[in-house]
Amino acid sequence: MKKNTIGSSRIPAIANGHGEIDTHLSTSTESGVYALDRWLARKILETLGNPPFSLKLWNGDEINTSSSTPISRIQFRDRSSLFKLLWNPNLHFGDLYSAGRVDVDGDLIQSLEAAYRGTSTPSKLKFLNKIQTKLLNRPRTNTLSGSRDNIHHHYDIGNAFYRLWLDKEMQYTCAYFPSPSMTLEEAQIAKMDHVCRKLRLRPGDRVVEAGCGWGGLARHMAKHYGAKVRSYNISREQISYARECAKAEGLTKQVEYIEDDYRNISGKYDVFVSVGMLEHVGPDNYQELGEVIHRSLTETGRGLIHSIGRNKPARMNAWIEKRIFPGGYPPTLRQMMAIFEPREFSVLDVENLRLHYAKTLEHWLARFNQHADEVEEMFDKNFVRAWRLYLSGSIAAFTMSALQLFQVVFTRGSNNDLPWSRTHLYE
Amino acid sequence: MKKNTIGSSRIPAIANGHGEIDTHLSTSTESGVYALDRWLARKILETLGNPPFSLKLWNGDEINTSSSTPISRIQFRDRSSLFKLLWNPNLHFGDLYSAGRVDVDGDLIQSLEAAYRGTSTPSKLKFLNKIQTKLLNRPRTNTLSGSRDNIHHHYDIGNAFYRLWLDKEMQYTCAYFPSPSMTLEEAQIAKMDHVCRKLRLRPGDRVVEAGCGWGGLARHMAKHYGAKVRSYNISREQISYARECAKAEGLTKQVEYIEDDYRNISGKYDVFVSVGMLEHVGPDNYQELGEVIHRSLTETGRGLIHSIGRNKPARMNAWIEKRIFPGGYPPTLRQMMAIFEPREFSVLDVENLRLHYAKTLEHWLARFNQHADEVEEMFDKNFVRAWRLYLSGSIAAFTMSALQLFQVVFTRGSNNDLPWSRTHLYE
Repeated sequence: MKKNTIGSSRIPAIANGHGEIDTHLSTSTESGVYALDRWLARKILETLGNPPFSLKLWNGDEINTSSSTPISRIQFRDRSSLFKLLWNPNLHFGDLYSAGRVDVDGDLIQSLEAAYRGTSTPSKLKFLNKIQTKLLNRPRTNTLSGSRDNIHHHYDIGNAFYRLWLDKEMQYTCAYFPSPSMTLEEAQIAKMDHVCRKLRLRPGDRVVEAGCGWGGLARHMAKHYGAKVRSYNISREQISYARECAKAEGLTKQVEYIEDDYRNISGKYDVFVSVGMLEHVGPDNYQELGEVIHRSLTETGRGLIHSIGRNKPARMNAWIEKRIFPGGYPPTLRQMMAIFEPREFSVLDVENLRLHYAKTLEHWLARFNQHADEVEEMFDKNFVRAWRLYLSGSIAAFTMSALQLFQVVFTRGSNNDLPWSRTHLYE
Repeated sequence: MKKNTIGSSRIPAIANGHGEIDTHLSTSTESGVYALDRWLARKILETLGNPPFSLKLWNGDEINTSSSTPISRIQFRDRSSLFKLLWNPNLHFGDLYSAGRVDVDGDLIQSLEAAYRGTSTPSKLKFLNKIQTKLLNRPRTNTLSGSRDNIHHHYDIGNAFYRLWLDKEMQYTCAYFPSPSMTLEEAQIAKMDHVCRKLRLRPGDRVVEAGCGWGGLARHMAKHYGAKVRSYNISREQISYARECAKAEGLTKQVEYIEDDYRNISGKYDVFVSVGMLEHVGPDNYQELGEVIHRSLTETGRGLIHSIGRNKPARMNAWIEKRIFPGGYPPTLRQMMAIFEPREFSVLDVENLRLHYAKTLEHWLARFNQHADEVEEMFDKNFVRAWRLYLSGSIAAFTMSALQLFQVVFTRGSNNDLPWSRTHLYE
């Protein structure tokens, strides 16, 4: 290990108390590289478990602590980027990468996977990271108005943007690839059928959907299973798109899209379904969600919740939470049980589709990259880089098991109208 | 409602402080029935939610608070039985029924189901019940020696007894009836195959089994899947039976039965399996069980835990816990996660087979009843009545959803060697 030239293993205090880095000290010597810079670069690599990539500094110096050949180089354009990354890597890497102040020369996904691999073992800076996460990244709360702001932030940036890289039915949730060679279009239809079969959907069933995106599942349930669906969503752009589609397909009598919060669901239903909303609910609200389900379901009602999850409780990555999904939180199965236990719902089936989400994201990223020029025209270069990082990072997270995808089927405890096996899902 | 002749709705204090009922007051008037007795009988029925059965007192008086025609009569032979039942119905009903001091004239299972139905809504005596449960029924602890005592209590009462009513392979756990008309023999084999498929068992796989009963699953894995199995169990009678079977079938090179606690498991394995042991482990020990699994499994290891469970946390029925399964505790899924979360195991699949256990128990009860005379010769009349009640009560508990049966498949978070769907379970 290289000699520590500042004579101490403690990280110098460089924050100005507002979570921003004070770069006055370093800007005057921007082009030079000091021993301190090289020492900091080594610290970053050590914190990441000496991954198989190097850090290349702004003067061309390259730091590598791995024993194997680097698969990529992380290029720093200036000193303050290095300081920022050290202060809060989870938060600042995303911003620096989006701004082009940090770049990755080599495979981005593999580099992120290597970082996940290294940080899955306890880090030396864990304590510092914890404090930073607590101080700097308080989650936006998911009150009724907070949820509206949070959802608007992500979903109302334009249907035209999402249309560039999602499937035809605009499913912005994990697809289901019983065969990995399926197209995205096929896998999204397979996902909807998988959900409908798990719910044993029958003609005439009254379904309530919490968080419907652009409404594809509701229309599928109506068209192919004869269900009557009421779908709730607080994203105005999505609801208006969903209504147009239902009208165009002649489904307005079977499908109703309601611009409102899941907490305001009213009526009685045979089926409750929610695909990709729980991530936005937050654990503090799970018991209330359980109450909503309890008052909405008939005595033999059944339900399915499909959500990103975790093996162990942890906040969303700080950058994703701040820039991409404000208010987002992927729960563990244990945490999800707060929805079901208080009202004694009976969990019938849990399936983990983690690798299916990695594959879904690979399809999305490929399409996104094909349309990168159009996205840049709609927004700007930084937006393209931010979304590329978000999609790549999500592939890495699902591949490395930092994230899971749970489908949970449940019913009332008193319901004995249950199938004798799950064979019907695979016929 | 009948006039309350003692002028107060409070229950008179009748306990002597040791959890036993002081019957001195009543024994001299054993044959007579007072207004107080009838009032207490009504209280019992009200506590049970006015179920569709009547209470018949020792002088022939019949009390019925249900608006429908009674499906059965609960016959009390003496006053002290009535007092005992009121004091702690969960505990004393079993003892009184076993001793023949309380009898059921009509369908026992249906009567128990009616009692479950009535008590699933909050009882007026809930607070009293809670205190009684805490004071009178502290669970035996599952320390290393405590577990040995508890397991000896239930499983070492004689292989000959269990042979009378279990299947050929002596599976004393929930069978799997993909078709409800299967025989018990077929369904127990189907269960073993279902478990092996969920584990994707391959020739040469090293399996460790925690709690193996009479060893049927281990022999099945060796014979039909080519696995090498080491099975742990602390029941001496079961282990010795299992060894004899393995010898008779020429499987001693593939299957090893070890008389020891799951906490003493050593070695590295591709597969961890435990069918019907977790009920005896107790939530305090789940994290330690997780540590045992963690140190036993290879990097791509996978596992399955099959256990009776609950939708909402609750102790085992007091009588079952005291007389049948000391130390027993059926966990909720949330509680089970204490096994998996600390070491970041990834839950892949949960299946709830509740109704399969009701059906398994129906088969067991029918066979038990066919052999009741032999059982009475082995033990006595009270034993026959106690076991008939235990089996009938368990049918009612699974049918009424007071108990669940969870099969949980898991692997290390880092394992990406996962099947793309569960189709292989149903081919």
